[in-house]
Amino acid sequence: MQRLDKQIEFIKEIEKLKTITRQNLTLDNQRHENSAEHSWHIAIMAMLLSEHSQSPELDQLRVIKMLLIHDLVEIYAGDAFLYDEHARKLAKENEPIALEKLVSILPEDQAEEFITLWNEFEEGKTPEAQFATSLDALQPLLNHSITAPDNHNPHNLSKKEITAKKAFINDNTPKLWAVAEDAINKCVDKGLWLDK
Amino acid sequence: MQRLDKQIEFIKEIEKLKTITRQNLTLDNQRHENSAEHSWHIAIMAMLLSEHSQSPELDQLRVIKMLLIHDLVEIYAGDAFLYDEHARKLAKENEPIALEKLVSILPEDQAEEFITLWNEFEEGKTPEAQFATSLDALQPLLNHSITAPDNHNPHNLSKKEITAKKAFINDNTPKLWAVAEDAINKCVDKGLWLDK
Repeated sequence: MQRLDKQIEFIKEIEKLKTITRQNLTLDNQRHENSAEHSWHIAIMAMLLSEHSQSPELDQLRVIKMLLIHDLVEIYAGDAFLYDEHARKLAKENEPIALEKLVSILPEDQAEEFITLWNEFEEGKTPEAQFATSLDALQPLLNHSITAPDNHNPHNLSKKEITAKKAFINDNTPKLWAVAEDAINKCVDKGLWLDK
Repeated sequence: MQRLDKQIEFIKEIEKLKTITRQNLTLDNQRHENSAEHSWHIAIMAMLLSEHSQSPELDQLRVIKMLLIHDLVEIYAGDAFLYDEHARKLAKENEPIALEKLVSILPEDQAEEFITLWNEFEEGKTPEAQFATSLDALQPLLNHSITAPDNHNPHNLSKKEITAKKAFINDNTPKLWAVAEDAINKCVDKGLWLDK
């Protein structure tokens, strides 16, 4: 297959990400957010919030690329709910296999670039990955605080559980921690998480 | 309001783009594609296809930024169907007003950056804007060829009308024109557009 044909094949394949839904809702309350629109949202956050990262030399393009592709593995591995430990463990095993399968469609150099970006994001060690993972964790808090109807807490989650999962934002991007805390408190006030 | 508060306010406001739907469908055929996931899709296309642009010096970050934000005006102005001339005319008048309203939430320097990027995309003159507008026009063809059920042609559109609207891809990014033509022909074969 020609190089361009492989690229177009991949672009068609990732259409599937629009059918992978998350626990979060959308503003019309009629459906669950999907991973494609979530990825769009955090990419714009990277455009706007880079100045609050810990690195004055942040490679913004690299951050945005990581955010645009980080959920593509869900096309084959599904979305694992952050508070479902069993699903998270399974995802940890399945996602690298899903990634290999997906990028096998691409020309080799681009497959390698995607794998490198995906691993960098997962390892969360570079300034770009630390900032990117913070945005990925912050966006669902902001979304939840404005889209979920009052007292919607289907998994009976508590403020303590949420805060524990999101605390790494304070390590990676301390300037955004107050935003996360504020969103968490708004959710608690709306009855979306137990106040304990 | 503090700078960070303005940025977060904007990030919450653009949640609304996920409720703005297009004529295109999604793979599960249960709903229409929205402008947020469309924007995500073309941003990944920019990651993969830059080598086919007319400029060897293409600023990929600029292209991706344009694509991520180009549809935000629809939050207030709505999505105008490409083949509805009346809606397109109205959009031409309303979109700059919608843009001003939306970016007024942002810190001034970022508001200016968004306006500059949006105008550059709309004018379509720089190599970045020419490439970005090509991707924006190509994605719905690829999407339509794989998501629409056979013989779905609610607006009774013809191949000739489609080709006329998309022909500028051949001027802006000739290396991608064969991809557009192929997708158009696939749609005609599926009965999605009249073969005339």
